[in-house]
Amino acid sequence: MLTFYYAPGTCALASHLALEFAGASYHPVRLDFKTQQQRAPEYLKVNPKGRVPALATDRGVVTETPAILQFIAQSFPEAGLAPLDDAFQLAKVNEFNSYLCSTVHVAHAHKGRGYRWVEADDTASIDAMKKKAPKNMAECFALMEEQMVKGPWVLGERFSTSDLYLYTLASWLPGHDIDVNRFPRIADLKRRLDEKPQVQKVIALHKA
Amino acid sequence: MLTFYYAPGTCALASHLALEFAGASYHPVRLDFKTQQQRAPEYLKVNPKGRVPALATDRGVVTETPAILQFIAQSFPEAGLAPLDDAFQLAKVNEFNSYLCSTVHVAHAHKGRGYRWVEADDTASIDAMKKKAPKNMAECFALMEEQMVKGPWVLGERFSTSDLYLYTLASWLPGHDIDVNRFPRIADLKRRLDEKPQVQKVIALHKA
Repeated sequence: MLTFYYAPGTCALASHLALEFAGASYHPVRLDFKTQQQRAPEYLKVNPKGRVPALATDRGVVTETPAILQFIAQSFPEAGLAPLDDAFQLAKVNEFNSYLCSTVHVAHAHKGRGYRWVEADDTASIDAMKKKAPKNMAECFALMEEQMVKGPWVLGERFSTSDLYLYTLASWLPGHDIDVNRFPRIADLKRRLDEKPQVQKVIALHKA
Repeated sequence: MLTFYYAPGTCALASHLALEFAGASYHPVRLDFKTQQQRAPEYLKVNPKGRVPALATDRGVVTETPAILQFIAQSFPEAGLAPLDDAFQLAKVNEFNSYLCSTVHVAHAHKGRGYRWVEADDTASIDAMKKKAPKNMAECFALMEEQMVKGPWVLGERFSTSDLYLYTLASWLPGHDIDVNRFPRIADLKRRLDEKPQVQKVIALHKA
């Protein structure tokens, strides 16, 4: 049995979607970031990093979105969430997911979590990061739109976890006052996913 | 034939080491960051992100360290660079590599590349990030030492690409005035890798 730890509004959405698209049987556990549940001793035993997502399996816990996504794809191969039989195409999935976690998510994090990278009372620097974040997010999305997303899915005709991860980060664009329609391929990909019952189910749970 | 694009002092070292440990046949191409070769139109055709590493294959280019590392491990399975037959252990490799790219490398980047996240003329904020970077790097390494690295290798008895990637980021510690010996498992891992001929060959090439 899998236990999935998540919080609404976080990148955990991508892994949550992957579990649904995989048809996995899992127990979802919601953490309340407002009461800092992710820092509670009980949760730090699950994930010492104090972050979500985390996926507890019979053999131990897996964290970090790209790792969880590939693990789900490999555990439920019949769902076709990654090109497991093609090392090059799988590398393209991992390349995209790695860009999302190390560059795009990081660009986003400078809006609300600038205190990570300067002293917590340095409000001037934190405000400066907040101000630049939308510009960096727009640049990342322009690069993905023009150079990386082949359409109709990230890989082209083949659906993959990269689509679910991109969907998740694209859902953060309104918080930066960026209209996703500036990026037609990504907007179209997001619209098609918005219509899927698996997406609607998870979004409803996160909003509840 | 593989072509590998790198620059000294960057995270490309990890993939370069993996190519050597895999016994791969490849053509190394060194970029000069001082003359901004990574931004030259010719290289942007290889990697539109203008960064290293990039690995050009017969089927196209792969970028992003975690993706390149798994691609090398899958392309040269006899080298045993990743537990390819065990989805959970492979997830632990990817979890570690993902943490290195999205958190540890990012912590490091705030020392020299703070201009990415604030306006380029905001020297006060850039200095504030530079000042905090060593504290964040030390925290990341303490967490890896205490919670993640099992010893003697990251996964325990089994060697993997995570060791090469950790070696690479550990080599940045002196630039933060952090003594690697504060983290005995990581220091020991680094020492054992320092002695390997593959490591010595690549380090000599990068220093040349």
